[in-house]
Amino acid sequence: MPRPIITLTTDFGAGSPYVAAMKGVILSIHADVALVDISHDVAAQDVRGGALVLAEATPRFPAGTIHVAVIDPGVGSERKIVYAQFGEQHYIAPDNGLLSALARRGPPDKIVALTNPEFWLPKVSATFHGRDILAPAAAHVSRGLSPDVLGESVSELVLLEWPEVKIVPGRIEGSVESIDAFGNLVTDITEEMLGDAPRDEQVTVECDEHQTLGIFATYADQPEMTLIAVIGSSDRLELAIVGDSAKTMLGVEVGTPVSVRW
Amino acid sequence: MPRPIITLTTDFGAGSPYVAAMKGVILSIHADVALVDISHDVAAQDVRGGALVLAEATPRFPAGTIHVAVIDPGVGSERKIVYAQFGEQHYIAPDNGLLSALARRGPPDKIVALTNPEFWLPKVSATFHGRDILAPAAAHVSRGLSPDVLGESVSELVLLEWPEVKIVPGRIEGSVESIDAFGNLVTDITEEMLGDAPRDEQVTVECDEHQTLGIFATYADQPEMTLIAVIGSSDRLELAIVGDSAKTMLGVEVGTPVSVRW
Amino acid sequence: MPRPIITLTTDFGAGSPYVAAMKGVILSIHADVALVDISHDVAAQDVRGGALVLAEATPRFPAGTIHVAVIDPGVGSERKIVYAQFGEQHYIAPDNGLLSALARRGPPDKIVALTNPEFWLPKVSATFHGRDILAPAAAHVSRGLSPDVLGESVSELVLLEWPEVKIVPGRIEGSVESIDAFGNLVTDITEEMLGDAPRDEQVTVECDEHQTLGIFATYADQPEMTLIAVIGSSDRLELAIVGDSAKTMLGVEVGTPVSVRW
Repeated sequence: MPRPIITLTTDFGAGSPYVAAMKGVILSIHADVALVDISHDVAAQDVRGGALVLAEATPRFPAGTIHVAVIDPGVGSERKIVYAQFGEQHYIAPDNGLLSALARRGPPDKIVALTNPEFWLPKVSATFHGRDILAPAAAHVSRGLSPDVLGESVSELVLLEWPEVKIVPGRIEGSVESIDAFGNLVTDITEEMLGDAPRDEQVTVECDEHQTLGIFATYADQPEMTLIAVIGSSDRLELAIVGDSAKTMLGVEVGTPVSVRW
Repeated sequence: MPRPIITLTTDFGAGSPYVAAMKGVILSIHADVALVDISHDVAAQDVRGGALVLAEATPRFPAGTIHVAVIDPGVGSERKIVYAQFGEQHYIAPDNGLLSALARRGPPDKIVALTNPEFWLPKVSATFHGRDILAPAAAHVSRGLSPDVLGESVSELVLLEWPEVKIVPGRIEGSVESIDAFGNLVTDITEEMLGDAPRDEQVTVECDEHQTLGIFATYADQPEMTLIAVIGSSDRLELAIVGDSAKTMLGVEVGTPVSVRW
Repeated sequence: MPRPIITLTTDFGAGSPYVAAMKGVILSIHADVALVDISHDVAAQDVRGGALVLAEATPRFPAGTIHVAVIDPGVGSERKIVYAQFGEQHYIAPDNGLLSALARRGPPDKIVALTNPEFWLPKVSATFHGRDILAPAAAHVSRGLSPDVLGESVSELVLLEWPEVKIVPGRIEGSVESIDAFGNLVTDITEEMLGDAPRDEQVTVECDEHQTLGIFATYADQPEMTLIAVIGSSDRLELAIVGDSAKTMLGVEVGTPVSVRW
């Protein structure tokens, strides 16, 4: 039987001893687990950015994977910590919106608040629940503990508001949702929304004051240094500068409006 | 039986091929080991910073874990390489002070110098003992080799000098010992030193020319952008700006004096 | 039997959800594999830099390791994706020169183009073959699939041109090939090329307008802040500033000429 998998997503920064402490806690409870880092480079306290990382990466993991996420500006406040199940993927996170990009695709199958101290570390710091509550809970679940005993059932998650994409005949208005390490601008406009809109030069894609004609299959379809629109690897419209960073070249940030017209 | 665990802490930088080479060497000797990165982002040649990372993260690991640390500005000089055991945790590191934050909590149970070339790689580079001596030694120990055969017994470790915390009635004087990725200032003043000092506004915490009243349980106890003192997750006094970086906002560095008065 | 090992080398940036998605895909096909990150900090689209990282780190891994490398500016273009075997190490990479630092040491034993869609994900994005073609292929090979069925045999790899090192009696002319995290300048002049050239002060090493006498065993052989030449851990001539960064202090980049005279 393969080892259970626990992934970690935080804003602690790569190389943080806090991440290592969480790994130590998990391995001390369940040594035979496979630990996978998703990201520790979410911007500090950026719940929205963390939510997008979880939605992008976690659905690719094997059924049964447990994803622990700690972007937790309200640590020590009244915010809950929850276990939530979305399909075959399991999540343990503060209930602050961190699971809300996943929830846009459909509600969770189960939510439990981690109120039962039996599965916390004996001493809980007020400032590091990731190590003292979330990590041990994940380790116990990876050993087969039923999530139901972690605490009380909860009916719904705290959800962030996401900008709405407007779809009218001949026009879609969305925005830049995230920017990847290459400086490509990933929008909230999906391939499904585009439907049977043309992909050739009859379509105009605008971002800020920049525009480009056509939606291409891949970056290699246009010459270097050209602004290009493609359907990216998450089935969403992306804007890129071929061979360079659209973020840097265009000075665009998350939230900048993007429209498609035809 | 769970796989043995070897952790790695270096100043090589995340993504360094030197780290990967060490992992390759370890896995070539013992493929069935679990490798865990503690940090590769210790500042270049910062033995003091590396010592603090080891003290923060490693005690959380399961008994029997082997921690390899390579912050080694004196590589190729006369400095020793040592195996040291602190309680149930095992360390392999240059003997340059890298284990001295651990040693502040109590002396090691055993120290052995890695003088026996039988457990080194056949060819040893003069500039990369991490790969050629420390990594293979750790892999052999993880397979069950007695550390005693690694070389000669040593009576004590090289220790760094740490600033002394002054405790007088009504006053404790310490300093900023490290700064985390959120810009929180972690001091060398422990909860134990504070003892029964008041936690309410009768207590004044000063750092440089900044001051704040009271010691709180968690960051959420004060409004955004407020300077706050809390007992952090390592049971030490921390100074933070709620929702922002105290390091950036206050311009404070490691070593800045911090005092508590009541 | 030890778990098979798959390593990952990309230019996606540490903490990229794209790396995590690749790991999810691999583990979904073969949960009992050990994943090792070599580097995700290769500069964006720097095929040459990625090639050097692979050549530095991968030969240290156990026989049978599968190395997946994705620095792929031409994703979606006509460039092939290949499986290549060099000795006991296995590689899956775009055929864009990424394996050419390895190939300088000798030709691959086998090359297969990944043309058989049976071992791709069912839906292949035009912009992320790393996740949709390379990762699943690696996972299948780690389960024992013969690389021969991945697609058609290929006779040779695309190779980058590397600057030639000129060797004449009493003089070797090379260049800085890479710069490590300490700012040490690693050249393409090998210990073998130096042969019986003197190592004492009869030898002059020049880099740009800077020069130093003698080739030393290790950094510790000269005082702090001195420019020193050593034979580094890859058996190549390195230039370093003892205790500081030669890159920063000398303002030197990859490609700067380095000569040795005696």
